[in-house]
Amino acid sequence: MSNPVLAELRRGELVESFHRGAFAVVDTGGRVVRSVGDVDRPVYPRSAVKGLQALPLVASGAADRFGLDDAELALACASHGGEPAHVEAAARMLAKAGLDAGALECGAHWPSCQPAAHALAARGEQPHALHNNCSGKHAGFACVGCLMAGAPEAARDFLRGYVEPGHPVMREVSAAIEAATGVRLADAPRATDGCSIPTFALPLRALALGFARFGTGVGLAPGHAHAAARLRAAVAAHPFMVAGSGRLDTVLMSHWRERVFCKVGAEGVYCAALPELGLGLALKMDDGNTARAAEVALVALVASLLPLSEADAAVIAPLKDVTLTNWNGRVVGRLSAT
Amino acid sequence: MSNPVLAELRRGELVESFHRGAFAVVDTGGRVVRSVGDVDRPVYPRSAVKGLQALPLVASGAADRFGLDDAELALACASHGGEPAHVEAAARMLAKAGLDAGALECGAHWPSCQPAAHALAARGEQPHALHNNCSGKHAGFACVGCLMAGAPEAARDFLRGYVEPGHPVMREVSAAIEAATGVRLADAPRATDGCSIPTFALPLRALALGFARFGTGVGLAPGHAHAAARLRAAVAAHPFMVAGSGRLDTVLMSHWRERVFCKVGAEGVYCAALPELGLGLALKMDDGNTARAAEVALVALVASLLPLSEADAAVIAPLKDVTLTNWNGRVVGRLSAT
Repeated sequence: MSNPVLAELRRGELVESFHRGAFAVVDTGGRVVRSVGDVDRPVYPRSAVKGLQALPLVASGAADRFGLDDAELALACASHGGEPAHVEAAARMLAKAGLDAGALECGAHWPSCQPAAHALAARGEQPHALHNNCSGKHAGFACVGCLMAGAPEAARDFLRGYVEPGHPVMREVSAAIEAATGVRLADAPRATDGCSIPTFALPLRALALGFARFGTGVGLAPGHAHAAARLRAAVAAHPFMVAGSGRLDTVLMSHWRERVFCKVGAEGVYCAALPELGLGLALKMDDGNTARAAEVALVALVASLLPLSEADAAVIAPLKDVTLTNWNGRVVGRLSAT
Repeated sequence: MSNPVLAELRRGELVESFHRGAFAVVDTGGRVVRSVGDVDRPVYPRSAVKGLQALPLVASGAADRFGLDDAELALACASHGGEPAHVEAAARMLAKAGLDAGALECGAHWPSCQPAAHALAARGEQPHALHNNCSGKHAGFACVGCLMAGAPEAARDFLRGYVEPGHPVMREVSAAIEAATGVRLADAPRATDGCSIPTFALPLRALALGFARFGTGVGLAPGHAHAAARLRAAVAAHPFMVAGSGRLDTVLMSHWRERVFCKVGAEGVYCAALPELGLGLALKMDDGNTARAAEVALVALVASLLPLSEADAAVIAPLKDVTLTNWNGRVVGRLSAT
């Protein structure tokens, strides 16, 4: 059975393309309060669970030990655009733990933020690991490993291979996902993410439960509950750090602050927590389209769940019903959730 | 009813994302020899019909009048990457007609070829109309308009608004599509393309017929049949000009030369002609994904229709079953046609 259409692109009078998908909205007790499509099929959450993956950074004491500030904690939850503020914060995190970019095992890619990429090219430079959209997450992993290693001089050796599933750092990260979602990861399909860490396929209903818990602390161990609250506050205080210029996570959390914690993932995944409602949600587009399918679907879903003020509605309207213009600025179509 | 899955992306053991779509393979008599999914629903072909749109450039005599060479004719059929050779050829076409980039109404965007974009940024420059992936097509339109205008000094005024459906140049272009596909465009849904010219929604079976005719000349007026043969030969001789470095159209036609004429379009469209079989084909992915859905589906379809030598099979194999690596070069998945 195919999942229903969640987003469509109109050009002229016709629907030119459309996107199928599924989503689950779950409360802290694991009850599915709303769902569409198949929410039991395991999907790789990819970067959408970076918030859960950052729990050990705070819960282990590494964030305090190395004096990470809120902007840096927000970056640990980020898929950032590689803008200068992102790159600098990742470098600071590493420096606070006595490390540098050489410790990162995420690989390098050009900043997704086009002006940042062009500025780099204009300086005749090549991107390095700090430009990787996951560099803050990896810097957080490095801080956790540095704490585990004990003596700073032992950290580099200890960290080697931290992206592998069996490394002590990655075990802590997996344990945090497992505790939040209630899924035994040893039984879950496992693959390798873009930044080389494992990604475990979980049902949307389990991912949504994880975010209901992340948003409220209900059902989490005290250390993780405290860490979740601190990460949510950090991201709400520094929404630019979690994504970047013009990016949806930044736009939504700049407006809603702690009322919404949302995080995009590759291949059309979105997870979010709505703390005031005690709800978590997870969605996945079948075709893996994030930028224009998962985003409008997420916005429409959040808008249908949260009570909206007039100001909220004004922010939301152009995000869930996006006017498309061409290279001459002519309106050629519209992208909207269905 | 939903169209079947034509391409899927595997990560680890799971299908992470998949793409539904439809295609039609049609002979010069309009008989559907093979089809999957709904081939009667009108779809916007976008850039996939640039070959048909270039017919008036040759048929009108403009190509000869202004002495366009094969590389330039190939560029007139192109969605190019904005690489230096593309930009220079578009400039030459215009210069031969006594025009410059100011005549183009396609708008500007950064080259899709990343090194070309970075080189432009490194020189502190901004992209202009010649970098637009459609600049060759538009330069061709400008040549047609210049011929129509008669005196060169009248050309600029005459050309103004050439992207509008009612302009004499665009009427010629629409007439060529109409003649090839057999669809009355006055009855077809019309929208505006990225480069501001009209795009008419046509059933896949009609688009496939258009390409069966384009590939053979059968069913076309003599002027268009001659023009189609010349354009096919030009693209076969200069496959780099029709797309660019690493791009599928360039790769396929560098290998097959005149045995395959294929052209990608935005939003998951592909059209192709297989002259030796007297067949045309057209496909559209529901979700509009071109780069990784329409491309593998097109390759698999062409490979299933053409007799393949061992050399052909070796070229085709990595294109229809694509190994995906991450930022560290680790194999993380596979993209393949189903």
